[in-house]
Amino acid sequence: MKFEPRDPDYAARVRASFACQRVMRFIGAELVELGPGSCAIRLPCQPDLTQQDGFVHAGIVGTIADSAGGYAGFTLMPAEARVLTVEYKLNLLAPAVGDFLVARGEVIRHGRNLVVARADVTAHEDGGTRHCATLLQTLMTLHGNATAARAAGSGEPRP
Amino acid sequence: MKFEPRDPDYAARVRASFACQRVMRFIGAELVELGPGSCAIRLPCQPDLTQQDGFVHAGIVGTIADSAGGYAGFTLMPAEARVLTVEYKLNLLAPAVGDFLVARGEVIRHGRNLVVARADVTAHEDGGTRHCATLLQTLMTLHGNATAARAAGSGEPRP
Amino acid sequence: MKFEPRDPDYAARVRASFACQRVMRFIGAELVELGPGSCAIRLPCQPDLTQQDGFVHAGIVGTIADSAGGYAGFTLMPAEARVLTVEYKLNLLAPAVGDFLVARGEVIRHGRNLVVARADVTAHEDGGTRHCATLLQTLMTLHGNATAARAAGSGEPRP
Amino acid sequence: MKFEPRDPDYAARVRASFACQRVMRFIGAELVELGPGSCAIRLPCQPDLTQQDGFVHAGIVGTIADSAGGYAGFTLMPAEARVLTVEYKLNLLAPAVGDFLVARGEVIRHGRNLVVARADVTAHEDGGTRHCATLLQTLMTLHGNATAARAAGSGEPRP
Repeated sequence: MKFEPRDPDYAARVRASFACQRVMRFIGAELVELGPGSCAIRLPCQPDLTQQDGFVHAGIVGTIADSAGGYAGFTLMPAEARVLTVEYKLNLLAPAVGDFLVARGEVIRHGRNLVVARADVTAHEDGGTRHCATLLQTLMTLHGNATAARAAGSGEPRP
Repeated sequence: MKFEPRDPDYAARVRASFACQRVMRFIGAELVELGPGSCAIRLPCQPDLTQQDGFVHAGIVGTIADSAGGYAGFTLMPAEARVLTVEYKLNLLAPAVGDFLVARGEVIRHGRNLVVARADVTAHEDGGTRHCATLLQTLMTLHGNATAARAAGSGEPRP
Repeated sequence: MKFEPRDPDYAARVRASFACQRVMRFIGAELVELGPGSCAIRLPCQPDLTQQDGFVHAGIVGTIADSAGGYAGFTLMPAEARVLTVEYKLNLLAPAVGDFLVARGEVIRHGRNLVVARADVTAHEDGGTRHCATLLQTLMTLHGNATAARAAGSGEPRP
Repeated sequence: MKFEPRDPDYAARVRASFACQRVMRFIGAELVELGPGSCAIRLPCQPDLTQQDGFVHAGIVGTIADSAGGYAGFTLMPAEARVLTVEYKLNLLAPAVGDFLVARGEVIRHGRNLVVARADVTAHEDGGTRHCATLLQTLMTLHGNATAARAAGSGEPRP
């Protein structure tokens, strides 16, 4: 699908937000591609991220897939908005092992308040690629007012 | 629901597997409760785990919820089996902020090959508690043979 | 959970809406219980609703579960609001066979715009009961203005 | 994706199974396309299938999407196998209104026991098309023995 971003400076805005996700730095994830309605995140596989069989933990796979879908949605939101994940569903297709993972998110449906995105995670090793997970996600756009209300108190109920 | 574990030593087996999930140590999560068909994991909130608004990232919430549900299922599996997450779905209900989070998993349905579990994540702060996420998950039991087949090659397709 | 309905006449409002769901009459479903944040729907099993093995089709199980969760949410909405399903996830736990099914929905989280509900479906036969499906669902409250906007054109994009 | 069906007569086998889904006839759905790993189902919109706003009920949308994904998976299964939906997740993107709906399912991942499929539902009216729902689904292949076991008693626990 082709999307027209409302905010011409969306790339700078998304990169600034990504830089504020401390967990991305913590796990070693990088934002590697960005377009209107799409986003890719790259994560080197490393032992600190593994489950009992030595694969990257499904929750970490979900972490980069959630951010890839979320930032795909965020590219299309107005400049003053915030993005919130309402829910996501992740299917694991193959073990997440290799040199690095790439999560590619894309917007499926862009409404005023709700955005639906999808993300696919691939594992890369010795030049080969394997599709290891797919995510389907609902996001919410928090417009100006909602954002201000939230800024006033982090304990606020979610919309 | 009441479940009868097939493996009387399930607790030692689950604790040993949890200790092999390096990502749990990495994020600071601990196994705090275990029973037949149930499991609780505790995660102190810390800045390294946050997204752009200072909340624990939805993917990290999913990480402890996935392990809580997965180990709830694992308590009921035979001694030689392995557990694999097929898929999970996470609804975020409130910001994951506070002193620590607790993910409590419980088995809903226990079949020979497929197990369905649920997990609820609460945020704890100053003695107060808030329900911040709920997960619904499908697990697969990998019985002896399947395990051996997988051990032979980590790149194997999943069942 | 205990909820206080904002609309004291919620029961009449929900029953009137249910009566407008022509598909409920078509498949033979009835609204059998209603409370603040909860709703139960009963569906006699009949051959017209079955899949290839003679079980009630997973989509029909989802139909009553979606309505049970949706109306559980609708009990808590303001008098002039409408309810919309954003998404749902259904796990099938056992074959849906027997004399009749009951889907019981309950609200997990009630926000101004988004409501999260859960529903469990049981199959009843000869006095016995079996848990055959569980659903996790996100609903949206369409407040007065949104409703008017939608009434103006059914082809409108969703919120 | 390209798939090689193990059963050269998959089309006849799928059509025979579809003909046994009495609910498809009941709601008026037809199988309109079939290929290795793909399947499309067409459903005329009619008042009997609607919810309170006159749209086709989300559960009916899920019914054709579940069957489209399920039969997409079934095309790739061995001749003696059965197919079972483990779970599905449906996101509603726009009102399901128009002359007819088409649900198009395709296999994402094909394992020996578990198959993951996706389906998209479009609404068609006056030559125009709208994407109204997307589904992500897990299926299970019941191989010969399992099938025999199930045939022996419909009340059997699921795998």
